[in-house]
Amino acid sequence: MLVKKLKEDFQSFDGQDITLQGWVRTNRNSKALGFIELNDGSCFGNVQVVYYQESTKNYEAISKITLGSAIEVKGKLVCTPDSKQPFEIQAGSIEVLGLSDHDYPLQKKRHSFEYMREIPHVRPRANTYYAIFRLRSVLSMAIHTFFQDRGFVYVHTPIITGNDAEGAGECFTVTTREDNKYEEDFFGKHAQLTVSGQLHVEPFALTYRNVYTFGPTFRAENSNTTRHASEFWMIEPELAFADLSDNMDCIEEMIKYCINYCLEHAPEEMAFFEKMIDKDCIKRVKAVAASHFKRMTYTEAIEHLEKAKDQFENKNIYWGMDLQSEHERYICEKVVNGPVFLIDYPKEIKAFYMRVNEDQKTVAACDLLVPYVGELVGGSQREERYDVLVEKLKELNISQEPLQWYLDLRRFGGCKHSGFGLGFDRMLMYLSGIQNIRDVEPYPRTPRNLIF
Amino acid sequence: MLVKKLKEDFQSFDGQDITLQGWVRTNRNSKALGFIELNDGSCFGNVQVVYYQESTKNYEAISKITLGSAIEVKGKLVCTPDSKQPFEIQAGSIEVLGLSDHDYPLQKKRHSFEYMREIPHVRPRANTYYAIFRLRSVLSMAIHTFFQDRGFVYVHTPIITGNDAEGAGECFTVTTREDNKYEEDFFGKHAQLTVSGQLHVEPFALTYRNVYTFGPTFRAENSNTTRHASEFWMIEPELAFADLSDNMDCIEEMIKYCINYCLEHAPEEMAFFEKMIDKDCIKRVKAVAASHFKRMTYTEAIEHLEKAKDQFENKNIYWGMDLQSEHERYICEKVVNGPVFLIDYPKEIKAFYMRVNEDQKTVAACDLLVPYVGELVGGSQREERYDVLVEKLKELNISQEPLQWYLDLRRFGGCKHSGFGLGFDRMLMYLSGIQNIRDVEPYPRTPRNLIF
Repeated sequence: MLVKKLKEDFQSFDGQDITLQGWVRTNRNSKALGFIELNDGSCFGNVQVVYYQESTKNYEAISKITLGSAIEVKGKLVCTPDSKQPFEIQAGSIEVLGLSDHDYPLQKKRHSFEYMREIPHVRPRANTYYAIFRLRSVLSMAIHTFFQDRGFVYVHTPIITGNDAEGAGECFTVTTREDNKYEEDFFGKHAQLTVSGQLHVEPFALTYRNVYTFGPTFRAENSNTTRHASEFWMIEPELAFADLSDNMDCIEEMIKYCINYCLEHAPEEMAFFEKMIDKDCIKRVKAVAASHFKRMTYTEAIEHLEKAKDQFENKNIYWGMDLQSEHERYICEKVVNGPVFLIDYPKEIKAFYMRVNEDQKTVAACDLLVPYVGELVGGSQREERYDVLVEKLKELNISQEPLQWYLDLRRFGGCKHSGFGLGFDRMLMYLSGIQNIRDVEPYPRTPRNLIF
Repeated sequence: MLVKKLKEDFQSFDGQDITLQGWVRTNRNSKALGFIELNDGSCFGNVQVVYYQESTKNYEAISKITLGSAIEVKGKLVCTPDSKQPFEIQAGSIEVLGLSDHDYPLQKKRHSFEYMREIPHVRPRANTYYAIFRLRSVLSMAIHTFFQDRGFVYVHTPIITGNDAEGAGECFTVTTREDNKYEEDFFGKHAQLTVSGQLHVEPFALTYRNVYTFGPTFRAENSNTTRHASEFWMIEPELAFADLSDNMDCIEEMIKYCINYCLEHAPEEMAFFEKMIDKDCIKRVKAVAASHFKRMTYTEAIEHLEKAKDQFENKNIYWGMDLQSEHERYICEKVVNGPVFLIDYPKEIKAFYMRVNEDQKTVAACDLLVPYVGELVGGSQREERYDVLVEKLKELNISQEPLQWYLDLRRFGGCKHSGFGLGFDRMLMYLSGIQNIRDVEPYPRTPRNLIF
């Protein structure tokens, strides 16, 4: 029997014999009786197991069961309407399946995030991680359900690639050699880990109309920040016959759907984050789910920022600049007071594949900024005009030949299309209020840090 | 408007004005009228668009629209109860959004699989690939729905790892250097692409009880077969408090669920495979979904094989051997006539983490064999006894230190647990009857083959 099932319907189990397996979260006792808080993994909350000296053969041994141990409990479920918890299990017998020994690294005190990062094999059992990794699973399902319900086709874009969408400097090489003779390597040429599935998914949008990726991506950036990991999961939807406005409609609908799905499917976890991590997290995401996402041009944003430039650490505000997080947060928190799409960025600060606007200076890009974190989603309409794209590659000194297949999509029944990227781990941080990406990934990979 | 929606409810659209976008699959015409088979990506089937010389301003241009071109059609839906297709679109206007030019690689003839593998950016539009990549998406959702409905937690095990579950020989190195000075490398040590998420997911099973992975895995095996790719997706569920029998129950339920889900959610695609790829594929998978999966020991299987050894290419049958595909297929096709779990394999031919049986000679492993393909799933009960596991590592000359964290799980509230691995791409081959793994992956990666 799973605790989750008991909790959903404890009254119908009143007085019944129940068998549970799980792990001991606390064990306290007196001479006459003891209490074990048992967690069986099926839901966030524990169940209270009461055992009595009088009726428990191995009372002495049971009273010494250590935190983290695995046990099996046979007993009776008894409703306790006057107590804090609505029911408890009165144990008939308790069997130890596996003790945790004196080295068990989680004790009944608060451990630092830094300490926990050293023990990724044990930390999922600590409340914060226990909540976040289930939320990770719930949010994954939210994403899949949202897109599949709308007829989007899920595409497994490749992890190992010969292409590189955003410049080769930040890529991991994949090799079976110990020298750099890539022409003799496994694939007969240089191979690397993908930084984005976008280029590879576009052919599928030009086939199935609406598609999405959801998979790992990689950056070999040698930077240690709280928001960057070397391995992270991205969602990259791509929509044919869709312009920038359609794109933003899809982003807005997706974000709202994910928020509501998580509130509905992980209520205990979200309540935990509100209580222990960030007291505003539920209020914040509910406000976003209820709001209408505004839209503002980059140019207008710059005007707002110029007026307020004294407030910023980086006061050098000018048209053409890359916005910093403080600027993004100012726009959505102070100017708009809610989520906002910034659109039509200077072409020089955006990727080659974004569609050039009629002004020839900006591209049809959209970044979704949300209060508290700043940028959450980045997207654009793609340049569907073959000649314009060829010119753009020349301007940027990007070699055309390796991208010829991508260009050819524009000659093979190309059409207007748009897409975006959502950093899955950042979305998790946003929902939970957890501040470091290392604490939302099961096994975070960062420079000089590869545990197990 | 999406064609899928029209097809589901065409009668209610009878006589209505409709706008469609999509790609031209065929275009044939006379002087007076023409027919375009349009596909908009939303479903397998096309919709017929009729256009008339009389009423179409750009009739000449429309009649020359090339295969693969993107168009927008405005017209009236007219039910045609006496025709092969139940409705058609009578075009008022047709706008060309993007022509496909003379280089368009798909023409109205059959192309070989080999030819298609050279053009992964175009082949999704060819029927076989169009069907298989949607089935890929549907099967992905089947997997997620099955496990999430049952409370399993989805875990993103790492892609880059310092660990290696099955021996280092077949791994890709991940590096930012061009020499082999791994201690100066990005992670400060040697890093590689994962071959399995199992070791990394076990800690989560010992927390959430029931968990699963679904992600890419990698093998640097230099072998060119129709069943091996260097990059492929795996599902690796892990169940705590579960023995080998519980494990097999879960496998059986999952396989049946996936089959039924795909038959229900991709009926047009499955009908296509039955017609064009493998006339038995629907019959075969329906039989599996309706059958009870038998269980047989490896030892018993060897007895059967010894009696029939003259039938095999490899006639050297003995206890302790690794079964070949022909042996596996004989057992399920001739002996059992249906799916069968082979269990209790000799420990020498199985992985170190599998639980040693009381006979000390076999381990609690289970391979699911199905008619037509042989092995589809491999699983085992895991060795939960610390001392036994330490001995096993010594026997096999595997260094204990890098696996100490894995061993420690046995000291930190360990318990009986089991799990299995399903090769996602092989399951797709099984469902569709497609014979080469290169034809079920969007961008297949194999030795000396890395396109885009």
